[in-house]
Amino acid sequence: MNIALAQLDYHIGNFDGNVQKMLDAATNAQAQGADLILFGELAVCGYPPRDFLEFDDFIRRAGEAVDQLREASENIAIVVGAPTRNPDPAGKDLYNSAYFLYGKKIVGVQHKTLLPTYDIFDEYRYFEPATSFKTIEFKGKRIALSVCEDIWNVGNENPLYTVCPLDEMMHEKPDFILNISASPFSYKQARTRIDTVKANVQRYGIPMFYANHVGAQTDLIFDGGSVVVSSDLNVFDEMPYFEENLRVYKLDEVVKGGVNNEQPKEKIKLIHDALLIGIRDYFRKLGFKKAILGLSGGIDSAVTAVLAARALGPDNVRCLLMPSQHSSEHSVEDARQLAETLGIQYDLIPIEPMYEAFVQGLKTQFWAQPQNVTEENIQARVRGTLLMAMSNKFGNILLNTSNKSEMAVGYGTLYGDLAGGLAVLADVYKTEIYELAQYLNDTVQLFPHGGGPIPQNSIEKPPSAELRPGQKDSDSLPPYEVLDPLLFQYIERRQGPRELVAMGFDEALVKRVLRMVNINEFKREQAAPALRVSEKAFGMGRRLPIVGKYLS
Amino acid sequence: MNIALAQLDYHIGNFDGNVQKMLDAATNAQAQGADLILFGELAVCGYPPRDFLEFDDFIRRAGEAVDQLREASENIAIVVGAPTRNPDPAGKDLYNSAYFLYGKKIVGVQHKTLLPTYDIFDEYRYFEPATSFKTIEFKGKRIALSVCEDIWNVGNENPLYTVCPLDEMMHEKPDFILNISASPFSYKQARTRIDTVKANVQRYGIPMFYANHVGAQTDLIFDGGSVVVSSDLNVFDEMPYFEENLRVYKLDEVVKGGVNNEQPKEKIKLIHDALLIGIRDYFRKLGFKKAILGLSGGIDSAVTAVLAARALGPDNVRCLLMPSQHSSEHSVEDARQLAETLGIQYDLIPIEPMYEAFVQGLKTQFWAQPQNVTEENIQARVRGTLLMAMSNKFGNILLNTSNKSEMAVGYGTLYGDLAGGLAVLADVYKTEIYELAQYLNDTVQLFPHGGGPIPQNSIEKPPSAELRPGQKDSDSLPPYEVLDPLLFQYIERRQGPRELVAMGFDEALVKRVLRMVNINEFKREQAAPALRVSEKAFGMGRRLPIVGKYLS
Repeated sequence: MNIALAQLDYHIGNFDGNVQKMLDAATNAQAQGADLILFGELAVCGYPPRDFLEFDDFIRRAGEAVDQLREASENIAIVVGAPTRNPDPAGKDLYNSAYFLYGKKIVGVQHKTLLPTYDIFDEYRYFEPATSFKTIEFKGKRIALSVCEDIWNVGNENPLYTVCPLDEMMHEKPDFILNISASPFSYKQARTRIDTVKANVQRYGIPMFYANHVGAQTDLIFDGGSVVVSSDLNVFDEMPYFEENLRVYKLDEVVKGGVNNEQPKEKIKLIHDALLIGIRDYFRKLGFKKAILGLSGGIDSAVTAVLAARALGPDNVRCLLMPSQHSSEHSVEDARQLAETLGIQYDLIPIEPMYEAFVQGLKTQFWAQPQNVTEENIQARVRGTLLMAMSNKFGNILLNTSNKSEMAVGYGTLYGDLAGGLAVLADVYKTEIYELAQYLNDTVQLFPHGGGPIPQNSIEKPPSAELRPGQKDSDSLPPYEVLDPLLFQYIERRQGPRELVAMGFDEALVKRVLRMVNINEFKREQAAPALRVSEKAFGMGRRLPIVGKYLS
Repeated sequence: MNIALAQLDYHIGNFDGNVQKMLDAATNAQAQGADLILFGELAVCGYPPRDFLEFDDFIRRAGEAVDQLREASENIAIVVGAPTRNPDPAGKDLYNSAYFLYGKKIVGVQHKTLLPTYDIFDEYRYFEPATSFKTIEFKGKRIALSVCEDIWNVGNENPLYTVCPLDEMMHEKPDFILNISASPFSYKQARTRIDTVKANVQRYGIPMFYANHVGAQTDLIFDGGSVVVSSDLNVFDEMPYFEENLRVYKLDEVVKGGVNNEQPKEKIKLIHDALLIGIRDYFRKLGFKKAILGLSGGIDSAVTAVLAARALGPDNVRCLLMPSQHSSEHSVEDARQLAETLGIQYDLIPIEPMYEAFVQGLKTQFWAQPQNVTEENIQARVRGTLLMAMSNKFGNILLNTSNKSEMAVGYGTLYGDLAGGLAVLADVYKTEIYELAQYLNDTVQLFPHGGGPIPQNSIEKPPSAELRPGQKDSDSLPPYEVLDPLLFQYIERRQGPRELVAMGFDEALVKRVLRMVNINEFKREQAAPALRVSEKAFGMGRRLPIVGKYLS
């Protein structure tokens, strides 16, 4: 028996596009001799469909998509994910199902049992868990079919769940396991995912074929990395990250094992590749081609510009250099040099005239008031307005360049430097951005004379918003080498004040930083969606009240 | 036996404040002869605590708060909601519990069984459902204790659930039912809530005491309306809406029944009162006093200004009148008249100089480009920047004045008129805003000569953004009397295109409007939190993907 894994980039709600992509893959797999092809979880509608699932029309169209695939299953079994109506009036209205289609028939349906409802997941909002577990017979083999999270409760040791669907299926002695997934990327996920697949294979002693989505849906990135693990715990194959792929495997060879094709997993390279596909898919799925961003001469906007140029092509990226009276000559030069080496169009628009117009307009109101952060925010908002004007006039999406450290402590201006359609780096800590810059300079090969596109000066100078004379980030924030590990423990690891102090962080610093994080929830609430690369990103994965009075 | 209901405004995460408030109420109730006092669901930490629940420190503090209340329970039983650790390693980490405290002891704990995970609710994200149901004996009476949603599956007829905790408890023949709730406001909720309490009383034939929260937590408003229903299905008492209250009831009299004190429920009055407490609590809980908003002369900003002046006092509201070259003389006059009759400070800042500075700054880039919506957006963003400058300089929170119809179809400028800390009217359709304006003019009694504060002209003139010469909303949108019912069916009722056409809506219009709603998710994602008054508000209650390609 030959089994094909299709690792595809689905588009939420685009039933026709998704079905066509799957039909093409099925034809292709059949031509390569495949008996069965495996697609992703909820592949017909894309993942996560969120509250579209509450529309009857959406569920009807999903059903029609399954029908189209069923019609194409005459000579190849198609395994695909789709939502299914729960016929029982009791319980949630839908199941998250895996369909096994063959000979133009629905041979079997296995609903998902373990419904992730944490972090970015809301599955219990929509779905009823499965309560029956049956294997499927196909061409003399018995198959255990599972959906994503169903393999994440190995030996019932995951405290979130009390059922282990594969344990139940093993009574019927299946020959191998299929899993259709939509497992979103974080830089640790590929490792964890393979370990989980292996743990299942070890427990049951049979091979597993695991198909993941690839591509980005707004903030969520799917890295692919679909995997085949033999009973001897070798990774028979791992599909490439961040690209669509179709491969056909001979079951006999997988069973035999002895081959290990696991890919290397390097944090910064993974983040880099994830951000590229994140940018690319956001534009493609919204039907846009061109990006705009502000280049300050600092490292964050430099890294964003290089990523955008790589993802979209330099012809599709345009930059504004918007110096104020507080911008150093060096900053403008660094920005200009970057734009020129990248070959991206740039415009220089000094903001002083607009800034002065605001100061004049507010002269009566601000009379006798001391200058404060207000004047800095006006500058940031003038820049935001210029960028959005370019975006509106030319149809470019504004890329936001804020980093995760700033987003965490609220070091940024709403409607100013926090503006944008997509926040490229808002899940990357400042200290990681330095690593990313180094990686870009090491891998972007534009120059016969060697050396990367990001000016050394942008990397080495002390970070500054340049909104008042001589300003440095370190005037208001602890050094990033101190701040970032503290933020990581608070945000990713959810450690409280007591635990942080016990870890050795200074008590006053802990109090100050946690307060900054908590009182700035209102800014994050209105921020652009952030490409998720960590295990805990701002956005749907971290839900906090604005008026909360806790550690604030 | 005397039973006190305390309807209090808790503050998320403010353990000390919440406990102090409850201790004061308990002392007060005891002085009035109460044997038992009932507080709200998760009252010690406020509702909804969201992901604060994932911090050990937060749960620890909740436990300490329960201890403080237990210490105060020597002579009065205290019934209060708090999160509890699930001691079983299997299942979610927490329970949502009702504590029955008396004689300085924990006499009983009943965990919540039915965990709402829909609309604005995410309870299954955090909590494990109860599986055991026991009544509590107190001073010779047997009490069925329940938490909020646990009474919303009467006779197991709610398709969302398969267990009915009160059915289970009835085996022990309780004398009455207690329910601690955090039931958020919509203009239909007070009716539904009383009907639900009555349905339980009818089924079990014993009275119910039901205590709700009051006050707002960012977007979510709790209306109070705590209720006592006698076995004869009379509403023995219903506490006032939108204010804190403490009342003591004689159990004998409640049992006797024959008294009906249900309050009237008028949609527009309820919405009005909800918005007032929504504004007031947002400011109070964030520690702010003063609001700023832009007054355009149109009805939305006029209604927002009157509501703000009522909620915060006219001395705490400041307005900017920011006419452009396209603003009619009339608009400025209407705005000025409103500010003067309300007695709120206003400033006139014409935006042309800033607008012209932007046009000049972008002259090179925009050369030979036709004027389009870009120029309109620049005007809106100049206004946003002026308002935010005032907000930053004087510590006023910017109130957003967008309505639900605009938010739905994306008729507004990100970082311009969509800016603000709180969106007062963003869950009120334009057609409802006219009713609200009328209500305000009927009830705000500022003038010896009669007549309300909102100029008739603001109410009667055709809606316009005044961003280009002669512009009217109806140039780009269907009339609101047509648009709003269609939006209501799509948003509140989740009707799809087929159903809408079957209802008689024009097919082309349906297609056009649904597309407008769906492609503008990116704007709503970055919008200010909207005070929720309907059954389906934008925000946490309606979660849709930005890159979705569905009906778009």
